[in-house]
Amino acid sequence: MLNLFDFEAAASRLVESSAWGYQTGGANDEITLRENRRAWDDIAIRYRTMVDVRTRVLSTTVLGSPVSMPILVAPTAMQKLAHPDGECGMAQAAAAAGTLMIVSTTATTGLAEVQAATPAPKWFQVYIYQGREYTRELVRRAAAVGYKALVLTVDAPTLGRRERDIRSGFTLPPGLHIANADHVGMDVVPTATADASGLMHHFRGLHDPSLSPRDIEWLRDLSGLPVLVKGIVRGDDAVRAVEHGASGIVVSNHGGRQLDTSIATARCLREVVTAVDGRAEVYVDGGIRRGTDVLKALALGARAVLLGRPPVWGLAVGGAQGAQQVLELLRDELDLAMALAGCPTIESITPDLVALPG
Amino acid sequence: MLNLFDFEAAASRLVESSAWGYQTGGANDEITLRENRRAWDDIAIRYRTMVDVRTRVLSTTVLGSPVSMPILVAPTAMQKLAHPDGECGMAQAAAAAGTLMIVSTTATTGLAEVQAATPAPKWFQVYIYQGREYTRELVRRAAAVGYKALVLTVDAPTLGRRERDIRSGFTLPPGLHIANADHVGMDVVPTATADASGLMHHFRGLHDPSLSPRDIEWLRDLSGLPVLVKGIVRGDDAVRAVEHGASGIVVSNHGGRQLDTSIATARCLREVVTAVDGRAEVYVDGGIRRGTDVLKALALGARAVLLGRPPVWGLAVGGAQGAQQVLELLRDELDLAMALAGCPTIESITPDLVALPG
Amino acid sequence: MLNLFDFEAAASRLVESSAWGYQTGGANDEITLRENRRAWDDIAIRYRTMVDVRTRVLSTTVLGSPVSMPILVAPTAMQKLAHPDGECGMAQAAAAAGTLMIVSTTATTGLAEVQAATPAPKWFQVYIYQGREYTRELVRRAAAVGYKALVLTVDAPTLGRRERDIRSGFTLPPGLHIANADHVGMDVVPTATADASGLMHHFRGLHDPSLSPRDIEWLRDLSGLPVLVKGIVRGDDAVRAVEHGASGIVVSNHGGRQLDTSIATARCLREVVTAVDGRAEVYVDGGIRRGTDVLKALALGARAVLLGRPPVWGLAVGGAQGAQQVLELLRDELDLAMALAGCPTIESITPDLVALPG
Amino acid sequence: MLNLFDFEAAASRLVESSAWGYQTGGANDEITLRENRRAWDDIAIRYRTMVDVRTRVLSTTVLGSPVSMPILVAPTAMQKLAHPDGECGMAQAAAAAGTLMIVSTTATTGLAEVQAATPAPKWFQVYIYQGREYTRELVRRAAAVGYKALVLTVDAPTLGRRERDIRSGFTLPPGLHIANADHVGMDVVPTATADASGLMHHFRGLHDPSLSPRDIEWLRDLSGLPVLVKGIVRGDDAVRAVEHGASGIVVSNHGGRQLDTSIATARCLREVVTAVDGRAEVYVDGGIRRGTDVLKALALGARAVLLGRPPVWGLAVGGAQGAQQVLELLRDELDLAMALAGCPTIESITPDLVALPG
Repeated sequence: MLNLFDFEAAASRLVESSAWGYQTGGANDEITLRENRRAWDDIAIRYRTMVDVRTRVLSTTVLGSPVSMPILVAPTAMQKLAHPDGECGMAQAAAAAGTLMIVSTTATTGLAEVQAATPAPKWFQVYIYQGREYTRELVRRAAAVGYKALVLTVDAPTLGRRERDIRSGFTLPPGLHIANADHVGMDVVPTATADASGLMHHFRGLHDPSLSPRDIEWLRDLSGLPVLVKGIVRGDDAVRAVEHGASGIVVSNHGGRQLDTSIATARCLREVVTAVDGRAEVYVDGGIRRGTDVLKALALGARAVLLGRPPVWGLAVGGAQGAQQVLELLRDELDLAMALAGCPTIESITPDLVALPG
Repeated sequence: MLNLFDFEAAASRLVESSAWGYQTGGANDEITLRENRRAWDDIAIRYRTMVDVRTRVLSTTVLGSPVSMPILVAPTAMQKLAHPDGECGMAQAAAAAGTLMIVSTTATTGLAEVQAATPAPKWFQVYIYQGREYTRELVRRAAAVGYKALVLTVDAPTLGRRERDIRSGFTLPPGLHIANADHVGMDVVPTATADASGLMHHFRGLHDPSLSPRDIEWLRDLSGLPVLVKGIVRGDDAVRAVEHGASGIVVSNHGGRQLDTSIATARCLREVVTAVDGRAEVYVDGGIRRGTDVLKALALGARAVLLGRPPVWGLAVGGAQGAQQVLELLRDELDLAMALAGCPTIESITPDLVALPG
Repeated sequence: MLNLFDFEAAASRLVESSAWGYQTGGANDEITLRENRRAWDDIAIRYRTMVDVRTRVLSTTVLGSPVSMPILVAPTAMQKLAHPDGECGMAQAAAAAGTLMIVSTTATTGLAEVQAATPAPKWFQVYIYQGREYTRELVRRAAAVGYKALVLTVDAPTLGRRERDIRSGFTLPPGLHIANADHVGMDVVPTATADASGLMHHFRGLHDPSLSPRDIEWLRDLSGLPVLVKGIVRGDDAVRAVEHGASGIVVSNHGGRQLDTSIATARCLREVVTAVDGRAEVYVDGGIRRGTDVLKALALGARAVLLGRPPVWGLAVGGAQGAQQVLELLRDELDLAMALAGCPTIESITPDLVALPG
Repeated sequence: MLNLFDFEAAASRLVESSAWGYQTGGANDEITLRENRRAWDDIAIRYRTMVDVRTRVLSTTVLGSPVSMPILVAPTAMQKLAHPDGECGMAQAAAAAGTLMIVSTTATTGLAEVQAATPAPKWFQVYIYQGREYTRELVRRAAAVGYKALVLTVDAPTLGRRERDIRSGFTLPPGLHIANADHVGMDVVPTATADASGLMHHFRGLHDPSLSPRDIEWLRDLSGLPVLVKGIVRGDDAVRAVEHGASGIVVSNHGGRQLDTSIATARCLREVVTAVDGRAEVYVDGGIRRGTDVLKALALGARAVLLGRPPVWGLAVGGAQGAQQVLELLRDELDLAMALAGCPTIESITPDLVALPG
């Protein structure tokens, strides 16, 4: 297990095939899925030399919370599909790695149980549901049990079309449920049909497609928590979010799972950073697999990256311990990349380190 | 049958092989055929978020005729090759989908019969023939039976060379004929020879290679109908057409079937839209297979797209119903793409939504 | 036999393998060989419509000699390797096609015999040899028997390295000789050795690597003939040639057979045309296989193209008649390309017809 | 054995597989390894014609030492892995070829023994070790035995991660040792473990990751020798080195073995040359396999190239003689490339000879 790709290969053999298709796939032709990855490879590093890199300080803060490295655990749904340790195992992995987990609303473990799994700070990912009361209730519970921030996903006014899942008839197997939806009776995911996966049925009519920037303020005031907005690929959208109270922006296209042929995140990160101009923290996810990818993201102005699929692969391979291994592997890679690029600190990772293609 | 490619695969097993080669192939090395498709994939979407997309209004008008979506049925020849339902079946499919069919002159069903198949508005595609009397007669018949506009194809002063068809000896099988040519005794397509397909023999000397922009006015005055000019890939040509009375421009390279290595339509659409500058409606075809392709076309300024091969695949798979399924599938994809791109209306699909390559 | 690639495939089965390797191969890694071809495909055609293309006039003049089309036969060596008809057969093919052949110095038939084969105008390709007396003699003979111009190859101060030929042990088989070298006793090509093909041995010390622009004037004055300079890929070199009396420039990298990774001719043609600025005629060769390639070359400013390997394939397949078939095929393709691109005459093939990549 | 690739193929069959992986591989995904190579192929040559190239003078000087060609032997570690002739054989090969060898610190032969192997001038490659005393001692010994310059590697503050070597369990086989480390008892390379190659263990804590530009002056003053700085990919780093006394800069990314996705050397050479602006000599290595690559490097401003892996392949195939063959082959290729590009001298190889991509 030398790198994240090794974990991917091992997990693919362990996870049930329709669940694997769900976790690993993207929307339609999976063009964005591939481009997200390729966009990082297309960036070359102009490393620096003759810099004192005896000590590399990877620690930073994210919305004021200290983390041991600029690599967070992205919100990914239904982690018990990968391993019985599920979301609690992931929380333990993140805590052990000294970093922060963003817990998905669509978890197979209740938000309180995940929060209780470790004393480490966590953020909670939310959607705005058509049932505002349900959203309000969820957000209040998250705030009440101590989540430190809310991550509002805005790139899913409706669920993207993932043909792999329709073909495989993917749904949540018996015994697993969307735990945070139990109080509204939507926790059991319906059976798949010929033209829709179980998840598509679950989501029909769930998200509020009228979400507006004002909902950022609404969420913030409701919860008393800072709000990050996830799913942005444009500078103007980021500015709208910031003007409506966002404390952070996550440049993301939902891992290529929503709108296929969306622009790769590595190709629009700089635009967002420039537009935000320091008024909020900017994060990025999508296709990050190597420590050098993290270095490039930081050089382009990200405060930290979110890692989605790889920790789930780790979970599949070895439960909480496997997920932690993935995080430690990437930390080691980033540490080495910083040493070899002449960057002793996070602050020293500046835009001149990268050469963009074309 | 989850997407248009599924219909393509199914149709390829159902249609006789030389007819399939004819329908699916392009000119010579088929470079433009491939580039038409690739050019859409090369465009990335900069989707918008936090927009109210509860309702997506896909309906629009095309030269004043209301259609339920900006996806029209392109004129494609000899549809009975795909299925006995032929052009009438296609007309029923378009009508059922609430959109407009452009009927090909080179149909295997007479123009009156197709027009009578549904009360829905239709346009009639014409060539200018060397026999002007024949052209005049055809156009008058089209106007008389109620076609709403003429689509003048200008990229075929002579037939392109399609080596696939020569190799396969393609011709129209017994029992099928070019119905609109019966009154001049040219309806039976000749047998193929070693160096020319049956269609090549049919077309020899048929089209008028001296077609000029003045013929647009001639057609318009003759028929009393608005004229669209199809087969344009340059801004200056579009302007010439508009100055000679064209109500619409169809950016098209005949699906890669005429001049191989012609520029891909997605790569010249913007130039044409800019040159026309609102004086006529601009349409586009070529390689459109996904709802996101339609979204991109509209972002680049198209009023609607024309869909050529895919409805014929639908016809092959399931007659009129299959063709309608194809149209509904693409409508659903466009609807989803608009939702995920933050576009509740056709008007909101603006140029900033796309990032062009290079 | 629908296109030039069909002739290539057929010839590859007919010609002895080391001779085929010689005719078809390029220098070293054959990067330029491939790029020459790809560079034409990379250019897109912005065709014109609504132009009267009833008649296409392909005829033009080359240094004042009328030809039926802007496609000449490039000088290629040792044509009897392909077919016993050899250079005389090629001359008959060119004459029958109404075009001009450039006869190679390195022919397997004497220059006088080739010239006598047809009354059609021909040009003679020359190298400047270290033996100036030999060069002088050759040039005088060419002028004496009626060649209309000299084509001085300047991209071969020494022979390029063609690893294919070394590996295959290529040499001229018994019975064939470099006919124009008989009077100096160098007509028999030596046997290949482990590290050099027979041709490499033949050329060692043959060419004059001190050739200078003044040799253009020397040749012109010596022969009384106009001189074209072949093998130029730079504007400044073309200007030097013109300033020293060149009547024509052939943009060429010797078909990718001399210096591997040389710039593709389609990528430097425009630079040369611009630099020459009408003071001489500009020609191009390298990778031309389709009528659309010819159209692109003319759009970029070439007066005509030189066709190298394809007529040799034709010769291999069917002797003089096969070579003529190749020429007629390409003429037909150019004629069709002109019709479909809206170009009734050679003069109407202007730079706006092409869109360059990148 | 016609080119360097032939030597690579032959060597791959002769060298033990983990040693071969070590010699031939790169860091992680080996993206830089491939890009180094591709970057040269992507550069096209705009060759000159009509230049007197009767004699090509390849000889030049490197820091004042005359060499017969601008191709030096790069420092590569542990050459006895390839062949018992090892570093002494390589020194004989370089001397026989009239060029200069840069001897690696990590040699399997002591520096004095290598120096004694030939009277030809040599340079010695050094790292700055955490044990400064050890560094000082090594440098003094190198100066004492007559090395002409020091080449300070600055792109390895710590060892890059080469997953191939970890997977293969690479270490130095019994009987071989890092000879120059014997006096500090570090000459025996440890056994590999599951997560680290033997070399990784050897290097842990060895290099000084606080190396600064002032160490250039320190080395120079300590040794009385000129210092070249190797491993630079940025203009500003080169300037810092020059301002601290460097006599030469080697543009290098350690053959793609240190930080994967580092910029290819051919893509940053020009920037470094421009920044240095003649104040030091600039060299380059990485992916050079053809004489045309050397020509391109010189056109971009390099004084000479360093050849790393290929002479080791030569050594594997035929000991000292094989290594010399590799050098002679590349010399012949450069000589031919100069002839065909119109460059009789090193000085005539100017920037206008190359066309960069994009």
